[in-house]
Amino acid sequence: MNRKLDNIKKINVTKPLKLDCGKTINNFPLAYETYGKLNKEKDNAILVFHALTGDQFVSETNPVTNKEGWWITAVGPGKAIDTNKYFVICANVIGGCMGSLGPKDTNPETKQPYGLDFPVITIKDMVRAQESLLEHLGIKKLLCATGGSMGGMQLLQFCSTFPDKTFSAIPIACSSSHSAQNIALNELARQAIMADPVWDKGKYFLKNVQPKNGLAVARMVGHISYLSEKGMQEKFGRKLQEKADYEFSFNADFQVESYLRHQGYAFVERFDANSVLYITRAMDYFDLSKQFKGGLVEAFKGQKTKFLIISFSSDWLYTTRENKDIVIALNASGTDVSYSEIITDKGHDSFLLEVPDFLKTLKSFIDSMHEKFKNEKRI
Amino acid sequence: MNRKLDNIKKINVTKPLKLDCGKTINNFPLAYETYGKLNKEKDNAILVFHALTGDQFVSETNPVTNKEGWWITAVGPGKAIDTNKYFVICANVIGGCMGSLGPKDTNPETKQPYGLDFPVITIKDMVRAQESLLEHLGIKKLLCATGGSMGGMQLLQFCSTFPDKTFSAIPIACSSSHSAQNIALNELARQAIMADPVWDKGKYFLKNVQPKNGLAVARMVGHISYLSEKGMQEKFGRKLQEKADYEFSFNADFQVESYLRHQGYAFVERFDANSVLYITRAMDYFDLSKQFKGGLVEAFKGQKTKFLIISFSSDWLYTTRENKDIVIALNASGTDVSYSEIITDKGHDSFLLEVPDFLKTLKSFIDSMHEKFKNEKRI
Repeated sequence: MNRKLDNIKKINVTKPLKLDCGKTINNFPLAYETYGKLNKEKDNAILVFHALTGDQFVSETNPVTNKEGWWITAVGPGKAIDTNKYFVICANVIGGCMGSLGPKDTNPETKQPYGLDFPVITIKDMVRAQESLLEHLGIKKLLCATGGSMGGMQLLQFCSTFPDKTFSAIPIACSSSHSAQNIALNELARQAIMADPVWDKGKYFLKNVQPKNGLAVARMVGHISYLSEKGMQEKFGRKLQEKADYEFSFNADFQVESYLRHQGYAFVERFDANSVLYITRAMDYFDLSKQFKGGLVEAFKGQKTKFLIISFSSDWLYTTRENKDIVIALNASGTDVSYSEIITDKGHDSFLLEVPDFLKTLKSFIDSMHEKFKNEKRI
Repeated sequence: MNRKLDNIKKINVTKPLKLDCGKTINNFPLAYETYGKLNKEKDNAILVFHALTGDQFVSETNPVTNKEGWWITAVGPGKAIDTNKYFVICANVIGGCMGSLGPKDTNPETKQPYGLDFPVITIKDMVRAQESLLEHLGIKKLLCATGGSMGGMQLLQFCSTFPDKTFSAIPIACSSSHSAQNIALNELARQAIMADPVWDKGKYFLKNVQPKNGLAVARMVGHISYLSEKGMQEKFGRKLQEKADYEFSFNADFQVESYLRHQGYAFVERFDANSVLYITRAMDYFDLSKQFKGGLVEAFKGQKTKFLIISFSSDWLYTTRENKDIVIALNASGTDVSYSEIITDKGHDSFLLEVPDFLKTLKSFIDSMHEKFKNEKRI
């Protein structure tokens, strides 16, 4: 996997980045991918922010895992985010493990992988690191920026920090402040990793191993929370896994058990356990209103971006209520905002799936924004 | 702890019990506790079935853990289930670890603790084992039987298997068939335990240790699922744990993190990891309708018991919908059934907490059933 990581697109961010924790990182790699072509007018660039376990490979085939890009349902030729028309950019977050600076990289001070010596990062740190990429690509203003889940959180931070860097924004199934339940679920994932003795206080890299069991359990937590109760019942119910009746054992009798085990152990092949710790921590620390005395309304003051907020009715991780709170704050700050709740049983995962109403909403908003953006540029 | 277990009430069940898995258990201990006094008329006996991590110590002080009984809010002198008036009985389920036969007991064949050689049990096995206790206590017909969560599942099975053994029944926050989401959450708990190398395929007893880390993570899963999103937000929100600001570390910055860690590691002091595996498996296998060709309606055919079903509006583990399905089936079978949905933010945990509407509903139903039962006995 490491050799493949050498051949992906990267920039070296030379400008020192002072992190929220107080430490500074210098000269660090930021890995990214692009799809489609930037037009002459530079009015067709769309930035995608990825979620917790995502990466920069949004569409086509991920060259490292050889699997489909994680947003293949939405991004590609003729898709909702049409790469025949738009230039789509996505960067791997810092703290991640797909080429951007993260805990598995070498600490220049010790010449060993960082492990837990890696600084604790925030969503704001992630977003500020990505600004350099837009500079590198020569994009002053994006047509649109979007992202679901942690991607949406990055997007809210991006718009607040850079109120005129994107013409439009579509935060999907996210929150402006991580809830107690979401902190609890992330803590559960972290405790599962840390409970694995192979994790060894983050120093597993010294033995060239991964805390697979803990990481797999952490991933199972995610998969349960990404589906809705009703969606799970429809998808799995009490169906048995290739057997006629109960086995009276602890093997995977039910399909839902074998699904979880499969998802858990497939994940360890492509993700770094310490990255899960760092990225979940960044999510938990996210509270946009905390950065402003006047709270969330103040966070969006002077906002130039046009927003569309999308939530999913059966998403219990980032509920419709939480998404509506963002709409209320944007309205209160005088920002141009639209809102759509997609009715579906598919839970938080909806943004990654073939949910026609969602994809249609995404497509029509982006296309109409493109027309408006072109007109504005012309004037 | 083991010495204390020698001094609790137990019967030795001599009648062989053929389990659903096909194996038979003989001459096994069933631990129980009682509160209040059985009256001459024997019309005041209430049987309580406990939940996954519960035990027979419903009220007063648990003599083994020295903590309050798990249902102290509902059971005691002057409480909803008033021990000044009623004789309350509760038995530890088989598969458990509070004195009834379970995986930590000695296997007569090997003279070693059972571990994973213990037979996989079902809710029906648990309930049939408890019938012997009623015989021992000389109770032909209970005034009432009740239980929340897995306790409610045992109660549904009890009423179906013994349609005339209790005058009334109050299944609380349960289901007649474990849902895919609940199977998934139980599987997560089991995987957390099994991922702990100390667990050693269930043979940890040979080294006199417990897979504490895995068991603690398993317990955290439970604690998240017992609360509602809104309840957690109200209880913890983003409150920090005795610090002024983020620590930028992986310590428990948030109160909700420290709550989960505390609950997780407190649990390992009082519970056996293999018991969690066996009891969750029994829950997952529970599907009352599967036992009858005609489904759930058939399960309640000829039912003499008067039912009150109680659910909690914010319970996402055993939803109101699932509880209503039981009401529908009871109605279809011609059974006397009442239903109450308690509106609360406290989630599944509500049945263990001071929720006035719930406790009032419980008390008034039991008291009115007592009047009816006395009248019936008189005639």
